[in-house]
Amino acid sequence: MFTLHSQLEADTFPVTDLELCRVLLMNDCNYPWLILVPRRDNLREIHQLNKAEQHLLMDEVSMVAAALEAAFDAKKMNIAALGNMVPQLHIHTIARFEEDAAWPAPVWGKVPAKSYDDQSKALMLERLRSLFAVPEQAQEVAVS
Amino acid sequence: MFTLHSQLEADTFPVTDLELCRVLLMNDCNYPWLILVPRRDNLREIHQLNKAEQHLLMDEVSMVAAALEAAFDAKKMNIAALGNMVPQLHIHTIARFEEDAAWPAPVWGKVPAKSYDDQSKALMLERLRSLFAVPEQAQEVAVS
Repeated sequence: MFTLHSQLEADTFPVTDLELCRVLLMNDCNYPWLILVPRRDNLREIHQLNKAEQHLLMDEVSMVAAALEAAFDAKKMNIAALGNMVPQLHIHTIARFEEDAAWPAPVWGKVPAKSYDDQSKALMLERLRSLFAVPEQAQEVAVS
Repeated sequence: MFTLHSQLEADTFPVTDLELCRVLLMNDCNYPWLILVPRRDNLREIHQLNKAEQHLLMDEVSMVAAALEAAFDAKKMNIAALGNMVPQLHIHTIARFEEDAAWPAPVWGKVPAKSYDDQSKALMLERLRSLFAVPEQAQEVAVS
């Protein structure tokens, strides 16, 4: 049984489940910031996945990054597996812009998180779910 | 022809070339910090690689991360593709420890880089090259 770490549960909203990963929206509207969590228990490092799962993780991270980049016209995608504080393996996938709150620094520890209000949260989740509901469509959006 | 970005060239020492990536040692002895650069020109995002190259990138990042973790008995591996300042795609692969200079924060912008002296640089490069000279051996080290 897969259990999401309590800190990730507190800081995010669920978007959708892909074949391997749960996709979460970070509750920080400073950036379009998703977190992918492979639905495997007791996982801390990418290299603990077997090779097929590692490739599937890469497929899902790339699909999400390409879709976010296209949907939000991002300047740069930031992708990172850190986990120094929350040990459950999770991969940050963040759309960055020259005018965002932390640019060009990495987002961590730069400015306080800015929570979504109810309306902007609902709009963002709807937009993201339309991107990922059908992976083939999301891929088409990503390369268009 | 593949050309390494001048900033990466200035900040690192070459370790070895894997099938896809050049492996570089970041000139910051605060952490065992490698950077993998896919040897393709005009590459900014992981999703610009084709799927086979993405999987090969994952194989190489995982191999390097597992080998570093084992060789240095790391507490956590940090893996990140950021590139907000240096646009050429490069993947940070950093061994982290509870007693390191930035723990538990990410390494970027936390403490000034601490250059290797000639002797420690030579020792580190020798150690790293012995890990990656024969990928099969590095894999064995990584899981031992």
